[in-house]
Amino acid sequence: MKVAIFFGSKSDTDVMKGAANALKEYGVSYKAFILSAHRVPEKLVETIKKIESEGCEVIIAGAGLAAHLPGVIASQTTLPVIGVPVRAALDGMDALLSIVQMPKSIPVATVGINNSYNAGLLAVQMLSLKYPDIKEKLVEARLKMKEKFISENREGVEL
Amino acid sequence: MKVAIFFGSKSDTDVMKGAANALKEYGVSYKAFILSAHRVPEKLVETIKKIESEGCEVIIAGAGLAAHLPGVIASQTTLPVIGVPVRAALDGMDALLSIVQMPKSIPVATVGINNSYNAGLLAVQMLSLKYPDIKEKLVEARLKMKEKFISENREGVEL
Amino acid sequence: MKVAIFFGSKSDTDVMKGAANALKEYGVSYKAFILSAHRVPEKLVETIKKIESEGCEVIIAGAGLAAHLPGVIASQTTLPVIGVPVRAALDGMDALLSIVQMPKSIPVATVGINNSYNAGLLAVQMLSLKYPDIKEKLVEARLKMKEKFISENREGVEL
Amino acid sequence: MKVAIFFGSKSDTDVMKGAANALKEYGVSYKAFILSAHRVPEKLVETIKKIESEGCEVIIAGAGLAAHLPGVIASQTTLPVIGVPVRAALDGMDALLSIVQMPKSIPVATVGINNSYNAGLLAVQMLSLKYPDIKEKLVEARLKMKEKFISENREGVEL
Amino acid sequence: MKVAIFFGSKSDTDVMKGAANALKEYGVSYKAFILSAHRVPEKLVETIKKIESEGCEVIIAGAGLAAHLPGVIASQTTLPVIGVPVRAALDGMDALLSIVQMPKSIPVATVGINNSYNAGLLAVQMLSLKYPDIKEKLVEARLKMKEKFISENREGVEL
Amino acid sequence: MKVAIFFGSKSDTDVMKGAANALKEYGVSYKAFILSAHRVPEKLVETIKKIESEGCEVIIAGAGLAAHLPGVIASQTTLPVIGVPVRAALDGMDALLSIVQMPKSIPVATVGINNSYNAGLLAVQMLSLKYPDIKEKLVEARLKMKEKFISENREGVEL
Amino acid sequence: MKVAIFFGSKSDTDVMKGAANALKEYGVSYKAFILSAHRVPEKLVETIKKIESEGCEVIIAGAGLAAHLPGVIASQTTLPVIGVPVRAALDGMDALLSIVQMPKSIPVATVGINNSYNAGLLAVQMLSLKYPDIKEKLVEARLKMKEKFISENREGVEL
Amino acid sequence: MKVAIFFGSKSDTDVMKGAANALKEYGVSYKAFILSAHRVPEKLVETIKKIESEGCEVIIAGAGLAAHLPGVIASQTTLPVIGVPVRAALDGMDALLSIVQMPKSIPVATVGINNSYNAGLLAVQMLSLKYPDIKEKLVEARLKMKEKFISENREGVEL
Repeated sequence: MKVAIFFGSKSDTDVMKGAANALKEYGVSYKAFILSAHRVPEKLVETIKKIESEGCEVIIAGAGLAAHLPGVIASQTTLPVIGVPVRAALDGMDALLSIVQMPKSIPVATVGINNSYNAGLLAVQMLSLKYPDIKEKLVEARLKMKEKFISENREGVEL
Repeated sequence: MKVAIFFGSKSDTDVMKGAANALKEYGVSYKAFILSAHRVPEKLVETIKKIESEGCEVIIAGAGLAAHLPGVIASQTTLPVIGVPVRAALDGMDALLSIVQMPKSIPVATVGINNSYNAGLLAVQMLSLKYPDIKEKLVEARLKMKEKFISENREGVEL
Repeated sequence: MKVAIFFGSKSDTDVMKGAANALKEYGVSYKAFILSAHRVPEKLVETIKKIESEGCEVIIAGAGLAAHLPGVIASQTTLPVIGVPVRAALDGMDALLSIVQMPKSIPVATVGINNSYNAGLLAVQMLSLKYPDIKEKLVEARLKMKEKFISENREGVEL
Repeated sequence: MKVAIFFGSKSDTDVMKGAANALKEYGVSYKAFILSAHRVPEKLVETIKKIESEGCEVIIAGAGLAAHLPGVIASQTTLPVIGVPVRAALDGMDALLSIVQMPKSIPVATVGINNSYNAGLLAVQMLSLKYPDIKEKLVEARLKMKEKFISENREGVEL
Repeated sequence: MKVAIFFGSKSDTDVMKGAANALKEYGVSYKAFILSAHRVPEKLVETIKKIESEGCEVIIAGAGLAAHLPGVIASQTTLPVIGVPVRAALDGMDALLSIVQMPKSIPVATVGINNSYNAGLLAVQMLSLKYPDIKEKLVEARLKMKEKFISENREGVEL
Repeated sequence: MKVAIFFGSKSDTDVMKGAANALKEYGVSYKAFILSAHRVPEKLVETIKKIESEGCEVIIAGAGLAAHLPGVIASQTTLPVIGVPVRAALDGMDALLSIVQMPKSIPVATVGINNSYNAGLLAVQMLSLKYPDIKEKLVEARLKMKEKFISENREGVEL
Repeated sequence: MKVAIFFGSKSDTDVMKGAANALKEYGVSYKAFILSAHRVPEKLVETIKKIESEGCEVIIAGAGLAAHLPGVIASQTTLPVIGVPVRAALDGMDALLSIVQMPKSIPVATVGINNSYNAGLLAVQMLSLKYPDIKEKLVEARLKMKEKFISENREGVEL
Repeated sequence: MKVAIFFGSKSDTDVMKGAANALKEYGVSYKAFILSAHRVPEKLVETIKKIESEGCEVIIAGAGLAAHLPGVIASQTTLPVIGVPVRAALDGMDALLSIVQMPKSIPVATVGINNSYNAGLLAVQMLSLKYPDIKEKLVEARLKMKEKFISENREGVEL
């Protein structure tokens, strides 16, 4: 497993699938864990240690409301942690601010509200620094995305 | 010590003095700790266990930005935890939402932005359920506040 | 009755059920009152005095819009008052600010928007300072919640 | 006294002077009271009854933070109540929402943040329905304002 | 006609019915006009003059988005103008700020978002300064509201 | 005069200078008027008609708070109107929303808060459709801006 | 083609139709392009150059979320660029701020959230500076709009 | 150079120093560039290509207002891009939303408002995946931070 995906409750599953989809596209191995910073803090700490010892390299964490999960994970590891604000109230503004406004020294790499696909892709970009094959796939995928976009929209659009 | 006051950095000292002032007014013993949920999470957990074993009954925690401290403490204890949003950015709105929007099962009793005096007074009110002398002082203080307010403003005001 | 639950209109009933549910889980007696700070202020004052004389120890109050009910109750008693912002407009932001931003000396312990379960649980935590059996139940419930959470999510999740 | 001006603390005096200034311009008699909805609720109720019996016709109330004063006054009288949101935190947004978002049946006529002059002028407009001399002054003052504005800005401006 | 109700498009009709309902309850005569400050400014000015000459005493104006209608009307008359922010985007926050934040000298008495009933009731309160029979009805209605509220909620509520 | 600049009070002069500066850079003639939509509406209408008859081609209008000036001007002309939200309260958010959220059929071309230079430049861009010499200057200025930017920052920066 | 309409994905088609409708009403030729600033930046640059060489005079660009498209286009041309904030999250506030708050020297003429009709009409107003027939149509259309509005609402409305 | 730091104007230098400081602490080589997405887009594209060819592995970009720089860079590379919202207006909320709300497929790893130190540290964490010596330094630094925090705050604090 190169990437671990954490989120706090089964109800976040749909939102977080995007992260897994991005990782699958690039053939990056991952595991997903439902673990809450507030309900099972000891289990969370234990799991972080376990996945680190198993070679996990990047962590993605999604949470809503007072979204502490990404920051609490970041306080337990020096691996890069990517935070996904999940919309559960206030259009997700509470989750966004709870994740992105981390204090000095404990960063969380925050993506857009409910945008877990970008969290997955960001993890792939980080891994591409180390793994040339992933880098290659990224460059190819970017090119293909461009071609696909242009070909799909070649005819313009009727307005 | 009946009350423990936590906050994450020396720079919060001025804002948090209000909590201590309220506790002093009612003769409630307290101790203050500078401890960060993100920088020293193990020490925080250890300290919570220690103060619980020493008979601490209410916890007050102040934090700014992505203010996780009150919620992280609440995840480690069943004591009532009072959260003080400290203004450090965005007029304190980030801290307010990070503290008040806790998920089901792990409440934090939130007071107004920078209003640590009210956090101290709320702790006193909680303790007054158990300690009749504190209850008595609360009732007296409320009466005195009213008298003082009325006598100070008896003459009206020139506008 | 150890806890009184107030709210301003029948339409808030569904949101406020969470508070009652939390109290029932811990066997804490309560009574619920529909009373408005703006429509029947005298009846509200009278009711607060009555429940205090009957031994009520904690008050929970839910309100939406310009949510004055919790603050108005707090001005009439030294019992701890817990405020629940009810979402009726502006995603509940109006209610949150009307409840949490109380002036110095009259605190309201505010929980998350529509999160009345946490209000009930916070009342239980306050009562646990005085009643050892409630404390015991809280500690047990916390442990059970952890076990349940871990066992339900042991298998991880397919993403 | 035709108008009563209420506010909750001496520190609001400067902001509330604008209301008095508007009333003076139109020769409308007023009295000012420092009274808090949360600290001296009984005195507030008593004072409202007193000024009503003395013939007060319009009430202006300024407050900051969780600004309950105008709404609480409105719950005690059928006189029109004008609310002035005072900026004390969050740029005054908390006070604005706490005043303007009143529930059905208990309106507060809200003016802009810190704009107590407009509260005074609105009171004058209300009184002008009944008092022809005030109406006359209003019409004259409007004309004079226009003339003054035009004459002051006749020369245009160097940019 | 004692009260004129203005709004900018047929689509606001449902929201503005509340104002008419309040006026009907108190037997206050009114007329409603669909007129836009931006689309037919000359017709608006002409209509304001006409209703003033016909003895109109209070104006209610509802608008959404960049809600200029109430302020533009207020610039054309010294009658009291009540503004109703109509929710059309941004939860009505754009309309609220466009109505309430009027500059010095041209006040608009603003009520809550979509709360046109309160606008009607506020007009009634203003008229009650001059018309003793309306004052009487207001006092009676307030009493009846209290009785009704208390009798409806006498039995408490099952939670 | 090709461009007219309107704003509502002398206190906006400093903010609005940027518009004049941009127009001067491109040699576009302009006149500035202090005129308020709320205080002197008739004079405003009269002035718009006058400048139109004098060949004015674009209008810039700056306003703060409930900033109606740009929209009210737009309702009186089919010339393009550019709105500048001026920060006077709420960080300028009230002015931004009051200007940009215009209803269907009466657009205002809105620029950033206090950013009157961009309003001036936008007027220049509009005029460049018709005047080839202005177009030429625009293209040149853009090139010079790029060269200047690159040359000033060639050496990089010490961090 | 006098006007080019850009937007970033097929899903914006419905929102952007309003711009085309306005242009059709005034007989202004246009072409629409689906092009993303982030996905196909080179194609975007190439297309801007192409439409400029083909005589395009005004550009309309709609985008949601971190809506960079209008600003990125503006950085590539001195043609006036009109930005339409498309609501995709946060009620469109993210798109509004990403479009309107452009830095000094690169303006974007911003219209209301989802209000692409006004973007089209603003383009027509800009073109009317140069094309007298368009100017004539604008003046006529404004008159017709007024007549239609007045005739449709002559009978008033039942409330 | 392992890291490139971009920002749009000299005035951002102070805010962006934090990023350089973090990189220096870990001995990571970097270069800083003042380059604007809107003013010199071609130079920006050229520079991105150049630093990629020179082996740059992570990019940090800071910007204020409609902060497009990080997103525009991300559209030109598959390197991970870290965005720093710089406070220039609206408390930095405009910059935060313009950076974090990127569309699917082009992520920007966003840190807190003005918190460029965390951007630097996040870059270090990403590089630590590949460079064992950086990983080692990170682990050591985390331990030292904890020790320093605890030792500095051992004595508690007087409140």
